[in-house]
Amino acid sequence: MQYHLDGKLVPEAEATVSVRDRGFAYGDGAFETLRAYGGTVLAWEAHADRLERTVETLGFAEAIPPRADLRERVRETLQANDLEDAYLKLSITRGVQPGKLSPDERVDPTVVVQVSPLPRGGLDGESVWDEPATLRTVTTRPVPDESIPADAKTHNYLDGILARLELRRTDDTQADEALMRDPDGRVVEGATSNLFFVDGGVLKTPSTDLPLLPGVTRSIVLQLADEEGVPIEEGHYSVQAVRAADEAFLTNTTWEIRPVAALDGDEIGGGPMADLLARLYDQRVEQICY
Amino acid sequence: MQYHLDGKLVPEAEATVSVRDRGFAYGDGAFETLRAYGGTVLAWEAHADRLERTVETLGFAEAIPPRADLRERVRETLQANDLEDAYLKLSITRGVQPGKLSPDERVDPTVVVQVSPLPRGGLDGESVWDEPATLRTVTTRPVPDESIPADAKTHNYLDGILARLELRRTDDTQADEALMRDPDGRVVEGATSNLFFVDGGVLKTPSTDLPLLPGVTRSIVLQLADEEGVPIEEGHYSVQAVRAADEAFLTNTTWEIRPVAALDGDEIGGGPMADLLARLYDQRVEQICY
Repeated sequence: MQYHLDGKLVPEAEATVSVRDRGFAYGDGAFETLRAYGGTVLAWEAHADRLERTVETLGFAEAIPPRADLRERVRETLQANDLEDAYLKLSITRGVQPGKLSPDERVDPTVVVQVSPLPRGGLDGESVWDEPATLRTVTTRPVPDESIPADAKTHNYLDGILARLELRRTDDTQADEALMRDPDGRVVEGATSNLFFVDGGVLKTPSTDLPLLPGVTRSIVLQLADEEGVPIEEGHYSVQAVRAADEAFLTNTTWEIRPVAALDGDEIGGGPMADLLARLYDQRVEQICY
Repeated sequence: MQYHLDGKLVPEAEATVSVRDRGFAYGDGAFETLRAYGGTVLAWEAHADRLERTVETLGFAEAIPPRADLRERVRETLQANDLEDAYLKLSITRGVQPGKLSPDERVDPTVVVQVSPLPRGGLDGESVWDEPATLRTVTTRPVPDESIPADAKTHNYLDGILARLELRRTDDTQADEALMRDPDGRVVEGATSNLFFVDGGVLKTPSTDLPLLPGVTRSIVLQLADEEGVPIEEGHYSVQAVRAADEAFLTNTTWEIRPVAALDGDEIGGGPMADLLARLYDQRVEQICY
């Protein structure tokens, strides 16, 4: 596999960073996971917007390559690996700097693009997951906004990792995803996914005033539902409300829309709303990408 | 400078990790900063204890090299660079794994030792800092225990970095250290230091039920004060209480004991207690290391 590192395509063995890179030392960087369909990245502008917001939060927005340049690096990475349908990860860290914790104003960022193959998506595609997700509530809380703004997608990902480790430590059903709540018990997000559920025909999802990463797929799903005239509510919900739902599903860039088979052992499942939105999503992918 | 990487000494250009290393991707690793005096690491066992606690929290304690092996790598790094008085950083990450966020149970950790020279410490030594610290309260909150346990010293360090960035963004006095509070306004810690202050002859410091990293130097200072019969109180304090203190100082492995000249522009300064503890600390360094 070829990697794109600081403007050049390199083989995996050379896709390395200094141990002094602040991405390695402190998780001091931003990333986006992207999905390409037929060689086109879905919702590139939305991902680029969020990446720019993240580096703005981290205070080195002025140092990163222009958006068109980043897009070209993504294109070159796909091409070099002869891939059209793929998962991509674009990372930008603060790079190597003198001194210790305090960032230096002069930033020479490290820019990495990694890729791995995925099946074709869209209407004739196949799903990247085999089964609906099993979901388990965990005690790990998402990092609050006042510590690290939740709308920044950074290389500090230990809350999600500790949430996933909880599944391994406490759960013998091998759940796929950990559901995190805030300290008031309100459902926030999965470790790598946003949650939706359906209650009496209304599509519900935790609102962005909670410390959640506002997923690009979450936005697309809300837009598709709105265009279809589906009633939408963004709010604060208990685990009990989700368990009692008619349907539930998770969203992220790779999974797209993945039904939730069960939460904490209680069956929920997908249903007509999840099916409708998945079909609309596939149509959108066909229109935009293939 | 020579680095110790996965059991081998390498020059800086080869001190690299894969972009797939989970330390780089997610900050999924543990570290310790150490200080060597005359070739001996002060409080090695306390640092090794904390490192083992951190990898226990991260769920790969069984995969890391034995303590004696780590100590030998530190020794070799000092020797290879012909250094006796030095700052050292020992990092252990979960390494490269297949898949994405969920950790795999099979761990081949990445182990890095980095070193840089420091002046001689102890009674005849010189301070690594030129001036007492100026301290500024920031709005960034330390990540709470329920998200990532505060006694784990991990490569997720963005709360401290954002705290330091606040100084640059909001402060024209160029403060040295950012003082973080919890959501209830209680003083917790600096971005890379613990806080002590003196009030009516009592040595006070935020207690470890707050989300602070329990510093090794903090422990040593508490022990020295206790041996000297100094009244000690670990508790919950407001910024106002610190501003009204007779003395204040910061501790970390590199700075040792650094007086606080001012907090939010109000002068505090060191004093007889800070001087006494600094002298006792230097004596301890002489006894143990030189």
